[in-house]
Amino acid sequence: MKKKILTGDRPTGKLHLGHYIGSLQNRVRLQHEFEQYVMIADVQALTDNFEDPTKITENVFEVAKDYLSVGIDPEITTILIQSQIPEIAELTVYYLNLVTLGRLERNPTVKTEIQQKGYDDSIPAGFFCYPVSQAADITIFQAEVVPVGDDQVPMIEQTNEIVRKFNRIYNSECLRECKVVLSKSSRLVGIDGKAKASKSLGNAIFLSDSADEVKRKIFQMYTDPAHIKVSDPGRVEGNVVFTYLDAFHPNADEVKNLKAHYERGGLGDTAIKNILNDVLQEFLLPIREKRLEYTKNQIINILEQGTLKARKTAVLTMEQVREAIGVKYF
Amino acid sequence: MKKKILTGDRPTGKLHLGHYIGSLQNRVRLQHEFEQYVMIADVQALTDNFEDPTKITENVFEVAKDYLSVGIDPEITTILIQSQIPEIAELTVYYLNLVTLGRLERNPTVKTEIQQKGYDDSIPAGFFCYPVSQAADITIFQAEVVPVGDDQVPMIEQTNEIVRKFNRIYNSECLRECKVVLSKSSRLVGIDGKAKASKSLGNAIFLSDSADEVKRKIFQMYTDPAHIKVSDPGRVEGNVVFTYLDAFHPNADEVKNLKAHYERGGLGDTAIKNILNDVLQEFLLPIREKRLEYTKNQIINILEQGTLKARKTAVLTMEQVREAIGVKYF
Repeated sequence: MKKKILTGDRPTGKLHLGHYIGSLQNRVRLQHEFEQYVMIADVQALTDNFEDPTKITENVFEVAKDYLSVGIDPEITTILIQSQIPEIAELTVYYLNLVTLGRLERNPTVKTEIQQKGYDDSIPAGFFCYPVSQAADITIFQAEVVPVGDDQVPMIEQTNEIVRKFNRIYNSECLRECKVVLSKSSRLVGIDGKAKASKSLGNAIFLSDSADEVKRKIFQMYTDPAHIKVSDPGRVEGNVVFTYLDAFHPNADEVKNLKAHYERGGLGDTAIKNILNDVLQEFLLPIREKRLEYTKNQIINILEQGTLKARKTAVLTMEQVREAIGVKYF
Repeated sequence: MKKKILTGDRPTGKLHLGHYIGSLQNRVRLQHEFEQYVMIADVQALTDNFEDPTKITENVFEVAKDYLSVGIDPEITTILIQSQIPEIAELTVYYLNLVTLGRLERNPTVKTEIQQKGYDDSIPAGFFCYPVSQAADITIFQAEVVPVGDDQVPMIEQTNEIVRKFNRIYNSECLRECKVVLSKSSRLVGIDGKAKASKSLGNAIFLSDSADEVKRKIFQMYTDPAHIKVSDPGRVEGNVVFTYLDAFHPNADEVKNLKAHYERGGLGDTAIKNILNDVLQEFLLPIREKRLEYTKNQIINILEQGTLKARKTAVLTMEQVREAIGVKYF
């Protein structure tokens, strides 16, 4: 029997090339090796977007469409919507007893995020507690493997701590610890070269961008500001065009030659941008075409079926959890 | 249409005379004036008893039996078990977003309890967040009236804050604020005269105590240590026997006469304890008899029916809540 793997995204916006490199391409591969669950984490996204719920709920379908367009196959991958599985909330409430405030305060991921968001004294309790909710996400589906970036490793440690404490206190084996698979691919930088590609920074190329938008963004890309004349030698390091060529050009040797040419001078920015444009258009074309294959109704249907299937597992886990605690009376 | 009233107890032990004076007698009366919901709050009790779940789960039936024995009528009062209504957990998770950590830290009730329990850095997150869960309890049943002691008033304020914030952010009217009805009756002191009657202090007379146990406890009661000979004048203030006579003797004039007699001397402790014993045995006899009327199966059935009925309301409220937030996709 294949092991279960759980991944997912907060539906805060459409997915972009950074998501493809960081996780989507892995999922397309992993769905053949594992029993894959992909969760659209709307409840988690609401913990820091609760005042703007439409942003989240509208993006649930966009994200699902992005999944399908890159080749996540609903026949073998279970795509589910977190909010439609209330058993996760139920499990979260029991897990909250097993984690102290002090432990949550020391969670490095949450600590960093709280600083980034400038919450000060006004940290929403839901946001503060989201690692507990995440532990419920993972364990309710009995996921054994969770692919994460290295910044998310403390989350998995927190999950396994809860699992061990639960099983010990309630003398149970109904929950299982999970293993981290570190995502090898590094994050993709944004077109401005300043930070990783992200919707909020407006420096990302979306999987759903039109051909014109893609071209426009490529021609905005940060290259080497000292590379003024075509004949000048140019820098490859920190040059976003080459970062993207490294990530998306199918022929590594050709990229190597281009880099050498650029460094010795004689290769203009327009030329390399045109090359990248060809590469990305070719990469995005089938994604764009696949996106058109699905009607809204079909996507709703896929989400409903996936959620239904996932919920069956969640219901079974919660039955065992309730039995272990003893909150079963009828 | 009658207004809805919600009350309840944490099932941490059998109920005693203190519960009768503090809440049960009110409920027996209020069930005719209101549509009364009485919740056995096992999930809340677990927030500070999660390591000893059997203590909670076993007492669910004891508490239900206590309710029925004092005359809470399952035909007109809905008795429900909190854990069996998972919609409460679901609502709690959404409410957690609407409350900041700072606000929870400032909750006077929780502050006091944290000090009493000596939690220091090891406050379970579930315990810390229980006011949010309590807001979910109240609002999911659309309760309009909540009878509480004055120490619980901050909980109701917290609930109404959440309601107003939810309705404002999600532009909704699906939740309603609730009103406090302060319980007039003061708390009953324990037989040791030191603190209020409580199971954990071992100074309470339980509704389910046998006639012998009741008598034994009455003869242990703290009276006036300076009242040595029958002929000595005795103190009525702080004398537990008189506190209980005040609470349970059907004839206030007779108690007044007894007090006067005791104060001028000539009335012995044994005499007043025998009088109290007669009063309490007469009070407890019908309760003890009613307790025997119910089989375990009948009680389970009453709890199941009550929970089922309550859950219907909870499901309806959660549908409106999900719609207001927008987490409704199929």
